[in-house]
Amino acid sequence: MTHLPERLLAGYRSFMASRYSAESQRYRALARDGQKPETMVVACCDSRAAPETIFDAGPGELFVVRNVANLVPPYAPDGRHHGTSAALEFAVQSLKVKSIVIMGHGRCGGIGAALNPTAEPLSPGDFIGKWMGLVAPAAAALAGNSMTAAERQTALERISVRYQVENLRSFPCVKILEDKGRLSLHGAWFDIERGELWVMDPKTGDFERPLLD
Amino acid sequence: MTHLPERLLAGYRSFMASRYSAESQRYRALARDGQKPETMVVACCDSRAAPETIFDAGPGELFVVRNVANLVPPYAPDGRHHGTSAALEFAVQSLKVKSIVIMGHGRCGGIGAALNPTAEPLSPGDFIGKWMGLVAPAAAALAGNSMTAAERQTALERISVRYQVENLRSFPCVKILEDKGRLSLHGAWFDIERGELWVMDPKTGDFERPLLD
Amino acid sequence: MTHLPERLLAGYRSFMASRYSAESQRYRALARDGQKPETMVVACCDSRAAPETIFDAGPGELFVVRNVANLVPPYAPDGRHHGTSAALEFAVQSLKVKSIVIMGHGRCGGIGAALNPTAEPLSPGDFIGKWMGLVAPAAAALAGNSMTAAERQTALERISVRYQVENLRSFPCVKILEDKGRLSLHGAWFDIERGELWVMDPKTGDFERPLLD
Amino acid sequence: MTHLPERLLAGYRSFMASRYSAESQRYRALARDGQKPETMVVACCDSRAAPETIFDAGPGELFVVRNVANLVPPYAPDGRHHGTSAALEFAVQSLKVKSIVIMGHGRCGGIGAALNPTAEPLSPGDFIGKWMGLVAPAAAALAGNSMTAAERQTALERISVRYQVENLRSFPCVKILEDKGRLSLHGAWFDIERGELWVMDPKTGDFERPLLD
Repeated sequence: MTHLPERLLAGYRSFMASRYSAESQRYRALARDGQKPETMVVACCDSRAAPETIFDAGPGELFVVRNVANLVPPYAPDGRHHGTSAALEFAVQSLKVKSIVIMGHGRCGGIGAALNPTAEPLSPGDFIGKWMGLVAPAAAALAGNSMTAAERQTALERISVRYQVENLRSFPCVKILEDKGRLSLHGAWFDIERGELWVMDPKTGDFERPLLD
Repeated sequence: MTHLPERLLAGYRSFMASRYSAESQRYRALARDGQKPETMVVACCDSRAAPETIFDAGPGELFVVRNVANLVPPYAPDGRHHGTSAALEFAVQSLKVKSIVIMGHGRCGGIGAALNPTAEPLSPGDFIGKWMGLVAPAAAALAGNSMTAAERQTALERISVRYQVENLRSFPCVKILEDKGRLSLHGAWFDIERGELWVMDPKTGDFERPLLD
Repeated sequence: MTHLPERLLAGYRSFMASRYSAESQRYRALARDGQKPETMVVACCDSRAAPETIFDAGPGELFVVRNVANLVPPYAPDGRHHGTSAALEFAVQSLKVKSIVIMGHGRCGGIGAALNPTAEPLSPGDFIGKWMGLVAPAAAALAGNSMTAAERQTALERISVRYQVENLRSFPCVKILEDKGRLSLHGAWFDIERGELWVMDPKTGDFERPLLD
Repeated sequence: MTHLPERLLAGYRSFMASRYSAESQRYRALARDGQKPETMVVACCDSRAAPETIFDAGPGELFVVRNVANLVPPYAPDGRHHGTSAALEFAVQSLKVKSIVIMGHGRCGGIGAALNPTAEPLSPGDFIGKWMGLVAPAAAALAGNSMTAAERQTALERISVRYQVENLRSFPCVKILEDKGRLSLHGAWFDIERGELWVMDPKTGDFERPLLD
């Protein structure tokens, strides 16, 4: 008996029968020639917001980092294990991606935790508390105004995307390539309920829905 | 003009016309009721190995962390920003997932970097070098035998999956729930070329292809 | 009563009624004209991995040496009785075969013995211990890493095939003909469970399953 | 492109489509449970006399050693690499086979070489000359009588089978088990032209064709 939840195994069977079957040549070429994605996406772990699904992306298209609340910790060359920084370095320096998209989304649990820190951490290690501490100042600055809880949540989700785009620029390799016009940085925000994609205007920072037709 | 690469926008249009259109009720329910994924997947950033694709998973099914080489740094409650630990804590304590899958894959660039550290780091921060330092001892133990480079790469990819499963157990909340039978830990390895999924036997640690018929 | 196990006698009756009956002309021609096999196979004694079965070979096709773990002791013109060397010399110099295949397989008892030498030899002569001593250095070089027992076994089975191909080249008659392009050397590995044949890439030494369609 | 002669690859495809396909459960059981052959056969490398073919044997039935002229060098616990002795030890002590069959055949090239030693060895190592030296005294004793060349060849082929059965008994582990009635030794001789199997009478040493019906 295979040691894997049956649902996953059934999904894998379906993948083999349909997608892999139809794209086996592409998979073989990607194995032989290596990946050459043009886009890196920093997305949230949320099960409702997979970038490959939202962008209908095939194998080889998107290099994807996923962490809680799609954060990019600022540049810190201190000898520690920085997972997101390592992925960024690899995408930019080795794969030479042309674009990086910070992909936020509505109803984000991490952003919610930043806005409503619990008295009790989720576990003694309080990893979520410390991780979301990266946006704690922005969360605190939203307190005391007259926004509703939902408005405040959406506001911080979008503020955070702008912060993460700025954090990308704290990495010298990103800054240099962006200045040379060889790398573009983007922000986006996905509305789970309506399936809407909102794109950040790089000049104003505002989020707008693209006209699709 | 939308500030997003045209390929992404085209993909999003396709998502709206097909998947969202077909599953709008599901998206609305997921927005209203929140996510309740039963499975967390720790996968690699590699553009050729998206878990949603391989498991043919729909919205709401998989809570996904993706970092270079699908690593789980061991439990370290030290006050730093641990992205993967935060995601793990959130999935286990808040979402109460039932299974966690460490999902490795062939031709992994991170594992390749661990086996062949370059004299020059990719950037002055050497984030990949430090991140992959998590498997450096296992990489060193593979040197000096008569395996080919490709065999050594596959061996380390699988050894690393076993290590990450073990690292999951260094988190008290994971260990306790696993001991109670409420959380199961799994290892898997995906062959990009052939689309094959190899599943780790929890007793022996060996990887085997499930018989699909 | 015939002094032969009944199972063998029944099998022989079946051979006469079917195969010999259908191919009697071929057997008569092979008796009259002598054998002219184009391929020599060095295979293991294992009852689950007969080359004629795996290659669906008829009479006259394969010149087959079988010893424990399909080894080729290196060239040693010392006046002793070298069974495998004698077969090699006969195949190359007298029969002028065009190809030699070293045919390893999974779950090989000889390779297992090399990896796990017992305190007690199988018999006072310790013939297996001495014979498998031919791959003892390669077995030792695999110790101390984090591979599972099964992974280490497969690794040594394949390393050994590469070594035996190299040992073939220690015979001057083999080396000269290979250099002239008149003799080709091959490695293969058979998976008993799945019936899969993995073929060695002569450049990298890696084993790959041929795409059969 | 697969590095294997096309004929072998075609044969393997045929094996997969017919035999493996029909016997996959048996192969899987043999992989899982290990081999348990009841019979060891010492046969010649000759391409026209494969034991699995002649005994119509399936996977797991016959443990097979094949060397030139199906010889068993006498017991010599001297620290050298003895391939046939190693196989014998493994079959008797580890697999605990119940029968051993020495399987000679007509038109044997090795026996021919023993009867007609060439002035020039096949190669400077003269491996065939030294290997067939094991039956040189018996070959010399046949010279000077009035047998035809073909009669002398058949005579030596059968004399040699009797010698090899005797050599089996030089191994203490064989002798002890035979005396206890737990291991039986057999001689046989195969006529390539007619497909006839001749079985050695253990008392007289004569070869006779079993009555098949």
